[in-house]
Amino acid sequence: MNYSYAFEVRLHDVDHAGVMFFAHLFVHAHDAYEAFMAHLGLDLSTMISTGERLPIVHSSADYFQPLHHGEKITLTLEIKTLGETSFTIDYSLHATTGLLAKVRTVHVHLDPRINAAIPLPQTLRQRLQPYCNTPIS
Amino acid sequence: MNYSYAFEVRLHDVDHAGVMFFAHLFVHAHDAYEAFMAHLGLDLSTMISTGERLPIVHSSADYFQPLHHGEKITLTLEIKTLGETSFTIDYSLHATTGLLAKVRTVHVHLDPRINAAIPLPQTLRQRLQPYCNTPIS
Amino acid sequence: MNYSYAFEVRLHDVDHAGVMFFAHLFVHAHDAYEAFMAHLGLDLSTMISTGERLPIVHSSADYFQPLHHGEKITLTLEIKTLGETSFTIDYSLHATTGLLAKVRTVHVHLDPRINAAIPLPQTLRQRLQPYCNTPIS
Amino acid sequence: MNYSYAFEVRLHDVDHAGVMFFAHLFVHAHDAYEAFMAHLGLDLSTMISTGERLPIVHSSADYFQPLHHGEKITLTLEIKTLGETSFTIDYSLHATTGLLAKVRTVHVHLDPRINAAIPLPQTLRQRLQPYCNTPIS
Repeated sequence: MNYSYAFEVRLHDVDHAGVMFFAHLFVHAHDAYEAFMAHLGLDLSTMISTGERLPIVHSSADYFQPLHHGEKITLTLEIKTLGETSFTIDYSLHATTGLLAKVRTVHVHLDPRINAAIPLPQTLRQRLQPYCNTPIS
Repeated sequence: MNYSYAFEVRLHDVDHAGVMFFAHLFVHAHDAYEAFMAHLGLDLSTMISTGERLPIVHSSADYFQPLHHGEKITLTLEIKTLGETSFTIDYSLHATTGLLAKVRTVHVHLDPRINAAIPLPQTLRQRLQPYCNTPIS
Repeated sequence: MNYSYAFEVRLHDVDHAGVMFFAHLFVHAHDAYEAFMAHLGLDLSTMISTGERLPIVHSSADYFQPLHHGEKITLTLEIKTLGETSFTIDYSLHATTGLLAKVRTVHVHLDPRINAAIPLPQTLRQRLQPYCNTPIS
Repeated sequence: MNYSYAFEVRLHDVDHAGVMFFAHLFVHAHDAYEAFMAHLGLDLSTMISTGERLPIVHSSADYFQPLHHGEKITLTLEIKTLGETSFTIDYSLHATTGLLAKVRTVHVHLDPRINAAIPLPQTLRQRLQPYCNTPIS
């Protein structure tokens, strides 16, 4: 199962060359992640306020085509891997011209008191599972 | 007549104090302005590409209550004044707790070749007019 | 007395039209404010962590000339008014072509427990005073 | 040879958790890249205006420790690979607590008219070469 999210490229997204500044792709991916978590009944704001931390320890992006000002973008998100203490999200960005870019973020469940990775909460694991399309080896 | 626009406060919007960084309010106001212009059939991207310029010459904001991470915001927009060469947009931001903030932007129709204000295009004036609720003196 | 701060207009600052996106001017003004406070021996991060709040309740900007990608900007900052519970900062932005823009921010000393303005701390008042060039009426 | 660049973590960089929002690391890396290019006598703004394009086709980051509000960061940059039509930049971010994060960007010399990679300009290649510490195989 995938989660879909839509946005439009706004003036503040694009640069002098008229295309999205590469770092802003990660901002939109994270907006989609927040919307996805809310869709799962998990409110990031509440999690942070109660000391729950899922920091990103790795991120990457591949840019195949520029994202132009005014373009309507469809982002689909899936859980690539669901580990003991971490999970990986893959995001694909499409427009009418095809695949524009891919983004990946790796999140770890962190205990900030001991600064170490701890097992993912069962609720989170159960809710992410349906979006994990890769067979677990 | 007003134009309504909705958004949610995302993690990248808020600061160390857990509330929206003051400058980001202007970014959301401008997102609403772009959506409003598109609603009027006026595409900002095309306008910029064809050399049409409506730069902001003044902006201001009043902050009454903090905007919290995760909060759902309703923004309403109206044309405050519609002048010969410029127009003023007022934005009001509400949440369930009431009025949070007000933003104002003043746009001028600029001829970049002579760097001077020129009369607003008739099409733009006609489409903005219904959203101007202030009697023209 | 004024405080001076220098920055360059970067690719992520500018938009499709090759000039600084209007909202980003406030970001640079706030960077200058943070550097100014540190210069006064007041660390904003520590203040926020210890519950001290100086939120911005009003901001405005006037844009006289566009800020171009790559341009070196000099920002000068002064305290416009120093009130009982609030202070106003004026920022002027110059380049070799003259005055580009002006920004203003109004900060209030807030007690977040009672959500009300309280007198400015004496240390803060004393350190801001030399940068207040307006005679107090 | 490395290029060094310093910056401080500002209020707009950090999120609700008091640490730098992951996407903003890429913004600072790109600021360093712009300063590095200017140091080499290559002005990005002029390059873009004259139709020269070095878009980022891949980016990644590893986050080892959070970057806190107010922290002074030292970023060092080196050319990891210098290919026929592309180059890879590695950025390391340090504070007094050690290595905080690594960022990588891959840039391609693009001919926008044919939307294809073309050989790097000789001037660019010569100026990047001293910062390429990896023996070319």
